[in-house]
Amino acid sequence: MDKQAQDKLKEQAGVKAASLVKSGMKLGVGTGSTVAYLIAELGRRKKEEGLELAAIATTSSRSKKQLEDQGFMVTELAAIDQLDLTIDGADRLATNFDGIKGGGGALTMEKNVAINSKRVMWIVDESKLVDRLGGFPLPVEVLPVSCEQNFRRFQAEGLKPAWRMAGNQRFVTHYGNYLIDLKVDPIPVPHSLAAYLDQTVGVVEHGLFLDMCDEVIIAHTSGAIEDRQKY
Amino acid sequence: MDKQAQDKLKEQAGVKAASLVKSGMKLGVGTGSTVAYLIAELGRRKKEEGLELAAIATTSSRSKKQLEDQGFMVTELAAIDQLDLTIDGADRLATNFDGIKGGGGALTMEKNVAINSKRVMWIVDESKLVDRLGGFPLPVEVLPVSCEQNFRRFQAEGLKPAWRMAGNQRFVTHYGNYLIDLKVDPIPVPHSLAAYLDQTVGVVEHGLFLDMCDEVIIAHTSGAIEDRQKY
Repeated sequence: MDKQAQDKLKEQAGVKAASLVKSGMKLGVGTGSTVAYLIAELGRRKKEEGLELAAIATTSSRSKKQLEDQGFMVTELAAIDQLDLTIDGADRLATNFDGIKGGGGALTMEKNVAINSKRVMWIVDESKLVDRLGGFPLPVEVLPVSCEQNFRRFQAEGLKPAWRMAGNQRFVTHYGNYLIDLKVDPIPVPHSLAAYLDQTVGVVEHGLFLDMCDEVIIAHTSGAIEDRQKY
Repeated sequence: MDKQAQDKLKEQAGVKAASLVKSGMKLGVGTGSTVAYLIAELGRRKKEEGLELAAIATTSSRSKKQLEDQGFMVTELAAIDQLDLTIDGADRLATNFDGIKGGGGALTMEKNVAINSKRVMWIVDESKLVDRLGGFPLPVEVLPVSCEQNFRRFQAEGLKPAWRMAGNQRFVTHYGNYLIDLKVDPIPVPHSLAAYLDQTVGVVEHGLFLDMCDEVIIAHTSGAIEDRQKY
């Protein structure tokens, strides 16, 4: 599929996701190229149809700027009771709706937004679908204070850690931490690995998003846009 | 006990703890008034007995300054493979050697140092001893991003949360986060509560230090200094 056809498909997926947004909602908005089309469509509906949202929180400064350019007022998540719906992308989506996120490095913010949403919807293209979680490095955000020890422990546990880099330097997250990408593939027993990572001192958050996603918009290479719900 | 007698007791406990430090060790040093006596004694031994440590990491800028004033070179924890011994205080110590820490707000750094030490020793006075963990608010460090949601969830779970304050403002940790003190007392099933907090998105760390402490120096009001080992 050429770039133009791909962009067209992303746009259709973004517009489809936007159609599920209703006036009065408290909305969480993620980031990514498809989400950009979602925001553009929300802006169009605001202008042409008078769409009004009760609140919007977002996971990235890029989305924040785009939302504000469209005339939406973005609020800090902590100031919102609970979001009605969050729409975000995902790096991998398993058939049971579990996912891997954090390819962009914002997993901690993304998980905090997701966990505080009544409903979570992801927009993905077909290439992100997997039977079991894998096929993508699993990001783990670690405090600098004992990051080397965490790295060595992951290595000893066979989790194939690699530092996330930004050029010649370690990538630094929004919270001033580092990312270790676990290149274990497929991911063995995701719930057990999540529990291990949750308990590991020095780990702030990880990219396993389990039991969080309720609905996915899938852009198929055939050109079909599929809306798949968990329940 | 008057202030002078109390200080004398703290000094004796600090000197006792220092006597367990051997040349060549990689040492972790906590903070607090008793630890200050420990550092003073380490400085004396350096000067008078030629005590040399292979590396020292510490959990506070105050201890760092005092160590450097005594001629020790302080290293970042991440740069040290594993500490041989860490000596710190504790806010509560149960008979099974589990503890509550974080009254000073540095729990995350303290836990990272503890978890990367072969042996952990706490210095406490008799007033810190409890049969079961309780009698002290349990600090939980939370990211600002969804701190209000965390607070309300703790409230709903009956954990009696209260914001740690610094004057009229929320206390801000070394990592730019907030502290929620859980005033649940006694702490019900510490291992279960620890697992719940570990899994809670937005929680960076908590003050339950379970299965970490190996040895305690206890300053009794009788004037006795007790050295109690877990095994």
